[in-house]
Amino acid sequence: MATLGIDVGGTNARAAVVDGQGQILSAARIALTDRSPEAVVEAIAQAADQAIGNSGVPVHGCGIGVAGQLIGETGVIAVAPNLGWRNVPIRELLNRALGRSVRVVNDLTAAAWGELKGGAGRGAKDVLVVFAGSGVGSAIILHGKLHTGASGVAGEIGHVKVEPDGRRCGCGSNGCLEAYAGGHNLIAQMKELVQAGQGAALLAHVGGDASHLNPAVLEAVAVAGDPAASALYERTARYLAMTVANQVTMLNPERLILGGGVLSHTPLLRQRIAEGIGRWSSETSRNTVQVVSAALGDDSGIIGAALLADLG
Amino acid sequence: MATLGIDVGGTNARAAVVDGQGQILSAARIALTDRSPEAVVEAIAQAADQAIGNSGVPVHGCGIGVAGQLIGETGVIAVAPNLGWRNVPIRELLNRALGRSVRVVNDLTAAAWGELKGGAGRGAKDVLVVFAGSGVGSAIILHGKLHTGASGVAGEIGHVKVEPDGRRCGCGSNGCLEAYAGGHNLIAQMKELVQAGQGAALLAHVGGDASHLNPAVLEAVAVAGDPAASALYERTARYLAMTVANQVTMLNPERLILGGGVLSHTPLLRQRIAEGIGRWSSETSRNTVQVVSAALGDDSGIIGAALLADLG
Repeated sequence: MATLGIDVGGTNARAAVVDGQGQILSAARIALTDRSPEAVVEAIAQAADQAIGNSGVPVHGCGIGVAGQLIGETGVIAVAPNLGWRNVPIRELLNRALGRSVRVVNDLTAAAWGELKGGAGRGAKDVLVVFAGSGVGSAIILHGKLHTGASGVAGEIGHVKVEPDGRRCGCGSNGCLEAYAGGHNLIAQMKELVQAGQGAALLAHVGGDASHLNPAVLEAVAVAGDPAASALYERTARYLAMTVANQVTMLNPERLILGGGVLSHTPLLRQRIAEGIGRWSSETSRNTVQVVSAALGDDSGIIGAALLADLG
Repeated sequence: MATLGIDVGGTNARAAVVDGQGQILSAARIALTDRSPEAVVEAIAQAADQAIGNSGVPVHGCGIGVAGQLIGETGVIAVAPNLGWRNVPIRELLNRALGRSVRVVNDLTAAAWGELKGGAGRGAKDVLVVFAGSGVGSAIILHGKLHTGASGVAGEIGHVKVEPDGRRCGCGSNGCLEAYAGGHNLIAQMKELVQAGQGAALLAHVGGDASHLNPAVLEAVAVAGDPAASALYERTARYLAMTVANQVTMLNPERLILGGGVLSHTPLLRQRIAEGIGRWSSETSRNTVQVVSAALGDDSGIIGAALLADLG
């Protein structure tokens, strides 16, 4: 049975019709010129109409993954920083605009579910999915079900503390993994090196234009042996690998899926996480877990949202 | 319905008949003079006979919690360090000696289950139980079920790494939480302070007899302001609190139960864990979790073993 998945980034609204096996049958994309809730909902409705029209199949439900904090199962977004939203009743708005019942989930939950059912998690039941993109998050799947926790926020691996009183994090706390290993924060730390006069090798790699600094550049310059880049890269790798290794010890998953914008462009960092598990996870848990890369790239969220659709 | 629970320590075998609500109806204890599997099984059988005889009710199943590493669900103990056992088929031995089918679980699992059903966990479904005794371990209960992991070793919070390449742990690895906060290791660290000439205040507290050093002494001497004891205590508190706080972030439990021989004698350390959660856990998870002390003391394991009994 085909369902509709929706994904909203900072620049586009995307919709896709997805079959029960997680295959995309048709997709559409509408650029966002205005990020007000009304304008975004209108763009979503257009993308949805196109995707459904092009699919040639009946579509029976709809799900959306949003990059933001949801208030429980209410369908209300408390905060969506990349859209500048606060307290937006997105489910209600979409139900009305699309004329169908929409399930609203966290974008990471959607992406993890997409990987589980249609990507690197196929066939596994106890899975930890870690995404390091602009933010860092995880999804815990136990016995084939998402573990959401007593108040729906389980899996916030990005806010596990790696250094007491460490770097300030976007969440308002200090020393979170995301403050070191999230994409925005990695780039910020690279720019701090530049400002401190230690970024010559990094800048040389991007033709002197600091706006082109990114995690792949850090990996390349660190591997080439630049001391400042190496020190930053090593700290990032250690915090990321140790945090993930510790969760492998605690959860004893059969599979660990690594994905997200940072990790998909830093193969050696993925390898460092795998090595960290070999070194730091408990013996039985490290002998059990299979470490794999996410398989669906940018489509994991839209596929997962479709597979989690409200069918009511 | 009444079942039989068995607990084997380093010095005694205990048996108790427990009702379905986790109340002990009768109990018996036999001193271990010989720790060979045959002698221990004989002592268990005697304790079981006494407990059942005194209970005056029919007993329908039996469970045992063992301080050791089990081989999956086979009922075979791979290693039980405090008994000096290796590869002991304890279920088979007990089935024969008791004439009934016995379920064999890890002692921590039994204790956590006892607390969940008959102690501090009553009424809760998503619970993290952390015991710091001679070892440090945890049990993860989700939707009212034990999460054992893909190979049965989930919850080994004692082997979460708190310091890369840190203190040697009994597990053969380095830098585990247990290497700092486990009872044996805490006492070892106190003795190291004495050997380094920094233990005068600690020794004064135990009348000069280093064999009386224990975690409660460390807490008392640290609180009194001794610099060396304070430094050790602060490090212990920080590692323990941060590790537990991070698991509260990841698992988002509704309740956290703190118990075990170390924590039951160090009320301020329990308080430090609660404060650490307030400081280091993610905002929603810390606002959700209720932190409580274990309620059943030394009986949690025997009650939990009985409640997990094999009824077949």
